[in-house]
Amino acid sequence: MPHAHRIEPGHKVHLAEYDTRENGGMDKEKGQARFLELNAELDVIQEELYAAGVNSVLIVLQGMDTSGKDGAIRAVMTNLNPQGCRVESFKQPSTEELSHDFLWRVHRVTPARGIIGVFNRSHYEDVLVARVQKLVPEPVWRARYDQINAFEGMLAASGTLVFKFFLHISKDEQKERLLAREADVGKAWKLSAGDWREREHWDEYQKAYEDAFRHCSTDVAPWYIVPADRKWYRNLAITETLVDALKPFRRSWADALEAMSRARLAELQAFRDQQAAPAE
Amino acid sequence: MPHAHRIEPGHKVHLAEYDTRENGGMDKEKGQARFLELNAELDVIQEELYAAGVNSVLIVLQGMDTSGKDGAIRAVMTNLNPQGCRVESFKQPSTEELSHDFLWRVHRVTPARGIIGVFNRSHYEDVLVARVQKLVPEPVWRARYDQINAFEGMLAASGTLVFKFFLHISKDEQKERLLAREADVGKAWKLSAGDWREREHWDEYQKAYEDAFRHCSTDVAPWYIVPADRKWYRNLAITETLVDALKPFRRSWADALEAMSRARLAELQAFRDQQAAPAE
Repeated sequence: MPHAHRIEPGHKVHLAEYDTRENGGMDKEKGQARFLELNAELDVIQEELYAAGVNSVLIVLQGMDTSGKDGAIRAVMTNLNPQGCRVESFKQPSTEELSHDFLWRVHRVTPARGIIGVFNRSHYEDVLVARVQKLVPEPVWRARYDQINAFEGMLAASGTLVFKFFLHISKDEQKERLLAREADVGKAWKLSAGDWREREHWDEYQKAYEDAFRHCSTDVAPWYIVPADRKWYRNLAITETLVDALKPFRRSWADALEAMSRARLAELQAFRDQQAAPAE
Repeated sequence: MPHAHRIEPGHKVHLAEYDTRENGGMDKEKGQARFLELNAELDVIQEELYAAGVNSVLIVLQGMDTSGKDGAIRAVMTNLNPQGCRVESFKQPSTEELSHDFLWRVHRVTPARGIIGVFNRSHYEDVLVARVQKLVPEPVWRARYDQINAFEGMLAASGTLVFKFFLHISKDEQKERLLAREADVGKAWKLSAGDWREREHWDEYQKAYEDAFRHCSTDVAPWYIVPADRKWYRNLAITETLVDALKPFRRSWADALEAMSRARLAELQAFRDQQAAPAE
């Protein structure tokens, strides 16, 4: 049974029905051992993805503050070849970014062929914070669901494999994590009064997420709900989802690589023949 | 004794005098164990660099084909937090890049504060391949030494810690590595007849490197010669150089972090006081 929940297109999600503390019937030790196995497999898969240069992978990470986006990147992507991995963090848009459409800043950094791109927050902020904080009128953010689907559909049609993960924590767990940051002066630099202010809009954010899942989980760019109160389970669920979905491509990447190798060897042979030929 | 050779400003380098097979009097096992220790230390240092956001680190990797630039990135940067690490590879310039000055394409991707940026090849190609292949007239590439020094000096003055590593392999070692790629169809996709063609200009490249070291090894942006016939030694030498040079900054990063933490806690307290105050 997969550990992350894939949302079927059009499915009306009620986040409250998804257990944030799920452990898949495993204890932490077993879960971590399984994670390490899968992580090693992902490493091999990335090498092939990179060398073949046929597909790219886009991983979107979203979640409430403290849901573990940074931690997931650290755990899941460490060990991979950094040359084939690019992490893009989207903060408050700059003046230049705001003077363009909302997809402009994400489009310029989508992953090239062979590359795994990770979006730490993404264009989904424009149907989340933009909606909750009323940064744009409703017709504007409502229109964005279709715009996002068109954009992601185009990426997928061009060879990008898209995965969107929602790191699902409970409101209690968030409180604990925020308080833990306060208690440790070594971690307090991560704090922001804004986190507490945003927390007051918890329910509105959950609702905005539910709508985004319903409208924008598609066959080519599915949303996954990842139970994230337990960090080890979160890391396991993400890695397992990636490995399971990417494994079927390995055959075609291996074929592409072999064709490339044969072409290069033939090219080299031609070069040698030319070198060996007597000058006219 | 440090395992990479730092070039003093103005020093006239004769690459032939630097042993490519150097092992620092260690065997591979001992070298790898030491590498792992240093790699773990670099991981901690990166975390502080990232959190403090005061400095950035720029690592330039250069070397002949097969000298191990990709392998060094893989070994030295794996385990670091991918969110704080960006690898930029410079291939043949695009039409757009060629329509700008030679520093334009590198400048737009220099690392932001907190980030370790790795250049897999760099602006140095413009005094190496550009010179050997006569892509520009001599006065043009000669002028670039000063232009590079001005550029790197400005980066350093703005808080970027610059390290430039030349992965030094012997001509024999290159031959072995090129032939190994041919022998294995699984690796042959890395091959290019161009590598053999470039190899014919080996001595000219070595000379071009020597001039670049002499003109562009500066106090704020030094060049290091890394004996690279042995991969384990190459990885050790690079990591050791980084750790030794970055360690002295840890105190100031810790101070910056603590100041940031205290400011955030005060901000949070002010927010709470405001929440608790009776409404007017």
